Amino acid sequence: MSNSFGQLFRISTWGESHGGGVGVVIDGCPPCIPLSEEDIQTDLDRRRPGQSDIVTPRNEADRCEILSGVFEGKTLGTPIAISVRNKDQRASSYSEMKDKYRPSHADYTYDAKYGTRAWHGGGRASARETIGRVAAAAVAKKVLATLFPELEILAWVQSIKDIEASVDADSVSFDTIESNIVRTGDPDAVQPMIDLIKATRSEGNSVGGVVESVVRNVPVGLGNPVFGKLDATLAQAMLSLPATKGFEIGSGFAGTQLTGAEHNDPFFMDGDTIRTSSNRSGGVQGGISNGENISFRVAFKPTATIMTAQQTVSTSGEDTELKGRGRHDACVLPRAVPIVEAMTALTLLDHALLQRAQCG
Amino acid sequence: MSNSFGQLFRISTWGESHGGGVGVVIDGCPPCIPLSEEDIQTDLDRRRPGQSDIVTPRNEADRCEILSGVFEGKTLGTPIAISVRNKDQRASSYSEMKDKYRPSHADYTYDAKYGTRAWHGGGRASARETIGRVAAAAVAKKVLATLFPELEILAWVQSIKDIEASVDADSVSFDTIESNIVRTGDPDAVQPMIDLIKATRSEGNSVGGVVESVVRNVPVGLGNPVFGKLDATLAQAMLSLPATKGFEIGSGFAGTQLTGAEHNDPFFMDGDTIRTSSNRSGGVQGGISNGENISFRVAFKPTATIMTAQQTVSTSGEDTELKGRGRHDACVLPRAVPIVEAMTALTLLDHALLQRAQCG
Amino acid sequence: MSNSFGQLFRISTWGESHGGGVGVVIDGCPPCIPLSEEDIQTDLDRRRPGQSDIVTPRNEADRCEILSGVFEGKTLGTPIAISVRNKDQRASSYSEMKDKYRPSHADYTYDAKYGTRAWHGGGRASARETIGRVAAAAVAKKVLATLFPELEILAWVQSIKDIEASVDADSVSFDTIESNIVRTGDPDAVQPMIDLIKATRSEGNSVGGVVESVVRNVPVGLGNPVFGKLDATLAQAMLSLPATKGFEIGSGFAGTQLTGAEHNDPFFMDGDTIRTSSNRSGGVQGGISNGENISFRVAFKPTATIMTAQQTVSTSGEDTELKGRGRHDACVLPRAVPIVEAMTALTLLDHALLQRAQCG
Amino acid sequence: MSNSFGQLFRISTWGESHGGGVGVVIDGCPPCIPLSEEDIQTDLDRRRPGQSDIVTPRNEADRCEILSGVFEGKTLGTPIAISVRNKDQRASSYSEMKDKYRPSHADYTYDAKYGTRAWHGGGRASARETIGRVAAAAVAKKVLATLFPELEILAWVQSIKDIEASVDADSVSFDTIESNIVRTGDPDAVQPMIDLIKATRSEGNSVGGVVESVVRNVPVGLGNPVFGKLDATLAQAMLSLPATKGFEIGSGFAGTQLTGAEHNDPFFMDGDTIRTSSNRSGGVQGGISNGENISFRVAFKPTATIMTAQQTVSTSGEDTELKGRGRHDACVLPRAVPIVEAMTALTLLDHALLQRAQCG
Repeated sequence: MSNSFGQLFRISTWGESHGGGVGVVIDGCPPCIPLSEEDIQTDLDRRRPGQSDIVTPRNEADRCEILSGVFEGKTLGTPIAISVRNKDQRASSYSEMKDKYRPSHADYTYDAKYGTRAWHGGGRASARETIGRVAAAAVAKKVLATLFPELEILAWVQSIKDIEASVDADSVSFDTIESNIVRTGDPDAVQPMIDLIKATRSEGNSVGGVVESVVRNVPVGLGNPVFGKLDATLAQAMLSLPATKGFEIGSGFAGTQLTGAEHNDPFFMDGDTIRTSSNRSGGVQGGISNGENISFRVAFKPTATIMTAQQTVSTSGEDTELKGRGRHDACVLPRAVPIVEAMTALTLLDHALLQRAQCG
Repeated sequence: MSNSFGQLFRISTWGESHGGGVGVVIDGCPPCIPLSEEDIQTDLDRRRPGQSDIVTPRNEADRCEILSGVFEGKTLGTPIAISVRNKDQRASSYSEMKDKYRPSHADYTYDAKYGTRAWHGGGRASARETIGRVAAAAVAKKVLATLFPELEILAWVQSIKDIEASVDADSVSFDTIESNIVRTGDPDAVQPMIDLIKATRSEGNSVGGVVESVVRNVPVGLGNPVFGKLDATLAQAMLSLPATKGFEIGSGFAGTQLTGAEHNDPFFMDGDTIRTSSNRSGGVQGGISNGENISFRVAFKPTATIMTAQQTVSTSGEDTELKGRGRHDACVLPRAVPIVEAMTALTLLDHALLQRAQCG
Repeated sequence: MSNSFGQLFRISTWGESHGGGVGVVIDGCPPCIPLSEEDIQTDLDRRRPGQSDIVTPRNEADRCEILSGVFEGKTLGTPIAISVRNKDQRASSYSEMKDKYRPSHADYTYDAKYGTRAWHGGGRASARETIGRVAAAAVAKKVLATLFPELEILAWVQSIKDIEASVDADSVSFDTIESNIVRTGDPDAVQPMIDLIKATRSEGNSVGGVVESVVRNVPVGLGNPVFGKLDATLAQAMLSLPATKGFEIGSGFAGTQLTGAEHNDPFFMDGDTIRTSSNRSGGVQGGISNGENISFRVAFKPTATIMTAQQTVSTSGEDTELKGRGRHDACVLPRAVPIVEAMTALTLLDHALLQRAQCG
Repeated sequence: MSNSFGQLFRISTWGESHGGGVGVVIDGCPPCIPLSEEDIQTDLDRRRPGQSDIVTPRNEADRCEILSGVFEGKTLGTPIAISVRNKDQRASSYSEMKDKYRPSHADYTYDAKYGTRAWHGGGRASARETIGRVAAAAVAKKVLATLFPELEILAWVQSIKDIEASVDADSVSFDTIESNIVRTGDPDAVQPMIDLIKATRSEGNSVGGVVESVVRNVPVGLGNPVFGKLDATLAQAMLSLPATKGFEIGSGFAGTQLTGAEHNDPFFMDGDTIRTSSNRSGGVQGGISNGENISFRVAFKPTATIMTAQQTVSTSGEDTELKGRGRHDACVLPRAVPIVEAMTALTLLDHALLQRAQCG
């Protein structure tokens, strides 16, 4: 259903930007996995705005609380409920939004679909909804670590507007990415990106970009034919994030320019291991992981909230103008990095449990 | 689950390239919809190879049979089983495949995952599996026609390798697309595309490309927040197709180069209707349709089956060489067009029923 | 999945007896339904122990909190999270349970399944888990009231041990049932039942019984053939409650003693309405409601927690004895009544939305 | 969904009594399981009418065909489609049914729900639908045999009308049950049951009864808390069968007459194994199997098709009379036995895969 993800490690998120809070319920978590609020808080802190001077100055503490499913520091196998209270809700920042639809936001579509909307903020479309996902993924990562200790999930900002990073997906490290506030894997791109974001912000404008991700030491056999393909699940996972407009894996759209002879990945024996000498497949063939690094990219549009005046309509059906106020993220890409990792972890774990179920 | 798609109009496909047949079971179809085998056969004929001299000379008649769920020419509301027998299975074309893994195919991954595979052909990864989807979509289209008579779903070949078509997504017609055997919407691109495919075929090579799709006269309100987003469902649907490597909607990856002020779609009143003066959103905002044309693109890699020699490994773990024989599609893009339409129809109908369930 | 119920009005409950709390997340609730914490609290108060002198003296205030999905007093259509904190957890009452398995409880099976258990109380098997269900059902009832204003769901205690109530299911009223602390619909059975429970309680023993339920003014057409049968869903719903051992609908087990000529319900015209002159079907035929009252019964075993000494084994695999301490419900039947109603409401609403989805 | 059962070993059945055929698609079957049409045919033959002179003289050969998912005698892990063609459809037997609703059948409810129905026979409500279930269960049994070689599923006719069999559930054998045409486990009840059925049949009447089932050598840990309880799943599985009116497990309804001290099952050590000295739990505690025999009973009403005249209404809303013609099963109990076993196998396997997924 709409607010659930996963078949066996199933997460159901809840919460809007200005309700009591946000959270998630995890069903199907394997038992006896060590888990504490600290495990989750670390990942929540990475996604939080206000971590640096290029992002919005909200002061959302976002402390998580585990309300069930854990006993004496380990998972019980029963549902794990994690909750984060909403604070710092300056409703007055948004009073104009009650009567106007912000362009390229979900204001109009929610109203049209439901006949109502939480006009205080982004409602269910708000990025605060991703807190539940990140919390659940922190748990998923603990489980994955017990199943595949070598598995490594990384994401980074590959481009912001026309600034392209130069990153080797097979070798970039978490430390390199986390060492800069834009979370790119290319030290030479850091300052240009920061400068662009600051300039954009002072103009009241916004920019988008591409987040790239790699998964290393992937077990073979994750994913299912047809609708349960690993890449299809990843595509759904990424396009379910706010502000996403595209997903590509391996050679992606660029690969459509190659011929089969140029594109195929030849197999060869590396000792007893079957490897491919190239990896345009992006680690997935026939929807199933082949052991090579999984490599994909997600396109994020420039954030719809901008401070310049825009033409729009009122909720009563009249042309009008809207000038933005309040919080304004000029670029969400750095915050999106841990969320892309989160969705990857959730996807991989669900497929790992499916594989264990069907094939032992 | 892996072989099912949809929550309310749920289809379960079955069948491999060389088993008894392929088919689909549709659960949740609204009752009293007129339906006959002819309705389905028309769409199946569109996807069939051997329709023109640029595609593989298989002679697969692919006659469908409705085995349940229809009575006196109308749907009963009970499951509709549609079956298509496999004929023309020249197993001898594939004998070498028993002991070797074809590069960039699913041979290795299926074997690694299941410990077995149907080496006769592509098995479950074969494009024959899409027959079930197209059959089910023929039914879905009949239902959609009763709910939204103006709704129009179109797809066409937007590019093959580096040949780019020039097509106006808002006005291209089905007749234009179907008038040429490459199913492109640009008359000027037809011959270059045909020439390229023929040349590629004679070289024993293959090419890929991009299929673009548009949906017109879309009702507002289809799609759900978060994991049930209309674009997330479309992404999963398209990436579940064989040979796909990417999905983008609206401005897609190119839109990441724009600023928010350049990218946002301003609202305006068109009489009593809320419209946007641009459509970089691609008709979906916050995961929900806003009434504008839905517009997306799917990347298809060049087919992995090529006739030239390739390095690979044997199933017993030794380096070896493979030289292709048998059937060879130099370019699957023209055949993919009706399948992209099919997945779009299935996605839209499922969301329409979900909307009817929740909001009446 | 295990902790979710429903396809369209989907509830996911969480929480154990001694964690932070219990709660539920509701996905798929129709929008614009008036909803407040008072609506839910009323039903929670009905299920609470400590309401009378025949039930356990726990003082669980059980105040609910709506954390999301509601705005300005109406549902948004987004997930509704409801939470109830656990208080009054006298862990010391249960210290012996760490090392021993209570007979006919879930202690052993949870430990064997998960390799761990929350030995503090009943854990996930505790009746506190039903709080989430009752809260969700309070919401479901509000929705049902908008769809079927005449629909009426009632349940009552039909028997406790060998004391059988005499109740006319077609006419018994909510007021009659709620007027006595055992929640039976037969005034003559009240005192015998109270006396039995008090006597049982003083002996440190427990008794079970049967809860009967009726649904009146049922719309025709709820339920689906085969696995989605309305009675099959009700059976699953009721057997998912703690302490249940049986479910029967209409003539139930007794009807197996009749011949077809004695058992069939003849149809007749009541004005323009199709009615049956008897109702051994219990309002469901072929898994679908026929408009007659739905009538079923649920068997509850005597509670496993008793104060007398019992033979059992320790967690280290040795024969031992266990003598109960702490809280002790001699009879859960009166508390089960609102929970049976809750599961009925959840089942009916889900089927109503499924019917609306498929047939409009 | 309505026509699917199971989360991991998911079966989707299709087909009505007078369409092209009936069948099932199995998704999620473990790979490399030996499987042939003979494995399935054996079980199909057991459920077929016309096996003896107490059941209806239809001559339905019911030969199954495996259309996918099996290769060189073993399962591939991909969907297994099994199909059985409908023959022997004497439509003329039912012409009167076009305009009249048969009492206690699904004629009226299907028409009211869908606005249409397959009046030729029982449509989707027909017992022919169970063919798909039995076929799928034959596959499930092969899988279960690889996981739990000692597991044994048995069912038998425990009573027909007021004739009660005397059977020891812990020791009755398959041979004893199959040795007589009523499939009871009590040799002394055989002739009385046969006589009753023959007499009933000659009167044009019908009788019902109770099927009892036992599962021996059950692994501990199958089932999930709350909505995924093993007994809740069994209840849904059994109530999804045609003509069922009740389900009880362990002590069932009779157990409600006992006190807790009388009802609880004490634990004791049998060597290193934890056992219970009684088994009123019926092998399930807290929704999870405890290793003791699972024991339950299913109530079957007397078949609604009788040959005597009945009051009913026409489809145009007028009181009328109906006198049955055509095929007539005086008692479906003997045929129900393999179907009850089938649903048990499907339930247990699904839970086994769920357990393997979550707990390894």
